[in-house]
Amino acid sequence: RPVGEPRASDFRLEEMPVPQAGPDEVLLRTKWLSVDPYMRINQSKQPSWMAPHPLNVVQSAAAVGQVLQSASPQYAPGDWVQCYSGWQQFAKLHNSAISKIDIQAAPAPSYLHALGMPGRTAWFGLHEAGRVKAGDIVVVSAAAGAVGSLVVQFAKQNGARVLAIAGGADKCAWLSAECGADWTLDHRKFTDSASLSAAIRALCGGVDVYFDNVGGMISDAIWPLINLRARIIICGQISQYSGGLDVPELGPRLMQHLLYQRATVQGILARDYAHRMDEMLRVVAPKLASGELRSTQTIIEGFSQLPHALGLLFGHTGAAVRGKVMVRV
Amino acid sequence: RPVGEPRASDFRLEEMPVPQAGPDEVLLRTKWLSVDPYMRINQSKQPSWMAPHPLNVVQSAAAVGQVLQSASPQYAPGDWVQCYSGWQQFAKLHNSAISKIDIQAAPAPSYLHALGMPGRTAWFGLHEAGRVKAGDIVVVSAAAGAVGSLVVQFAKQNGARVLAIAGGADKCAWLSAECGADWTLDHRKFTDSASLSAAIRALCGGVDVYFDNVGGMISDAIWPLINLRARIIICGQISQYSGGLDVPELGPRLMQHLLYQRATVQGILARDYAHRMDEMLRVVAPKLASGELRSTQTIIEGFSQLPHALGLLFGHTGAAVRGKVMVRV
Repeated sequence: RPVGEPRASDFRLEEMPVPQAGPDEVLLRTKWLSVDPYMRINQSKQPSWMAPHPLNVVQSAAAVGQVLQSASPQYAPGDWVQCYSGWQQFAKLHNSAISKIDIQAAPAPSYLHALGMPGRTAWFGLHEAGRVKAGDIVVVSAAAGAVGSLVVQFAKQNGARVLAIAGGADKCAWLSAECGADWTLDHRKFTDSASLSAAIRALCGGVDVYFDNVGGMISDAIWPLINLRARIIICGQISQYSGGLDVPELGPRLMQHLLYQRATVQGILARDYAHRMDEMLRVVAPKLASGELRSTQTIIEGFSQLPHALGLLFGHTGAAVRGKVMVRV
Repeated sequence: RPVGEPRASDFRLEEMPVPQAGPDEVLLRTKWLSVDPYMRINQSKQPSWMAPHPLNVVQSAAAVGQVLQSASPQYAPGDWVQCYSGWQQFAKLHNSAISKIDIQAAPAPSYLHALGMPGRTAWFGLHEAGRVKAGDIVVVSAAAGAVGSLVVQFAKQNGARVLAIAGGADKCAWLSAECGADWTLDHRKFTDSASLSAAIRALCGGVDVYFDNVGGMISDAIWPLINLRARIIICGQISQYSGGLDVPELGPRLMQHLLYQRATVQGILARDYAHRMDEMLRVVAPKLASGELRSTQTIIEGFSQLPHALGLLFGHTGAAVRGKVMVRV
């Protein structure tokens, strides 16, 4: 299991013969494979929403690809599909484990981002758990990431004012220019939560919705600033994934702020909204097609770069990353 | 302002002439005065849901008393009323600041407990924020306190199974015998959260509703045990009030558990439900009259004992306290 941030030496490249599709199965040629922060949670030995990821098996992951062979009446060679086939170039899958995507409606990689799991997370997290409304002050951490960059845009579309927090001046400039953030903050300029908190207060006063992808010091800065009946969405805690989940990091106890402001904190997972993709796609797909919504992707080339691409999500190696990181294989 | 736990030396006894009621005012003889953990929050210099309590003024507090003089057409001498007149033997109040109580329906002190603010907190906190239902496993901290002892009983009435956590074997025995707790735990037997967590897990497996009056180590033990879609109600954080609010105590970061279990944490205050007392009293007053609900009170005698009574809510001096602490003056 990885110690600290995941790195290439935690993975092994295995070759085996390409399988054949059996009855009701298809053989898939994967084209885009996903890397996501949640993978590091499942690599921990601690149980989460599922048991720890087994060792010495294919890294599970979302994929988009094309049917090469089909022994299923529902699929034909050439069909574009999405599935959770993991980090494999070819995958044999039962036809119940894949679903078609419409690459006329949107480019295939979008189905790993705005029209896929990260989009669903941002959409339902912000609207259902966050109950965002016009005039709200929304703060998003890891705002330049796959989910964060969508949350910033969705919040703006709801008439909220948005503070986007990211690591580095370049990301902040991009969040202003491309995602429409009202304010941005480079958290790397701050070494303690008190000064970060003061900077946030100076920008936006208080916080109605905090979409938390990071946790740690950024949360320490924001919790004391929540407004009455604030909603805090726990979407991720990436600051804690590389080690902290096994032995929790210490931080200040701040629960009393929830009491003072009668605020709500809610943990969300994309899977809880999987049955509601249609209602999201009905709104989001046209916005993506019209250009009102940007699905920015950082695409890394080459199957062997998957561990490197995963590592870009953590720590300081990902300074050039924007939006959704994926690998073209 | 108090440093650490509030004590008698933080207060001053002042005497002044008894005032006269002006137009639309009454003069009240207070009979029971309340001491509540929230007072310590307001004694901190940190803002909470209100500004810090001013210094060198009457300690604000809920009271039950009898009208001595009335210049209001709505009240006559002898009427029993409740109000927030603070720690005073006599109080001059505008008639809009008091409300009548029915001492035929329930003994007067009940209006400072089951039929008053603590009852409202327990009732709406458990039902609205906690969304308790039959079969839930409910854990209550400070279970022998004013709110906790009602939460245990309300949860049982909803068909939940209840673990009551309190300090000391005597309180635990009382919670089993008098409040109907299925399980009890004396948290003072534990010096670390891991062993407390293991003990809780051994008793009840997991937690659907955690009614948190205490925070600190008890929360550290419970958070890793929450079940899917658990509800955590932040009603109080008494472990943090005596100093921790000014400079937060450190504890483990556990937000990832909310993510894994898609759980909700909500801070509550009684004042948010003040307009809904009727709907609560319609159910709770008959239960109290019939004996189905016990409103246990610890009554301290004498106005001068108010600071001492407040101190009983904190630390280890309150071992003999059960239910609601108040002072008969």
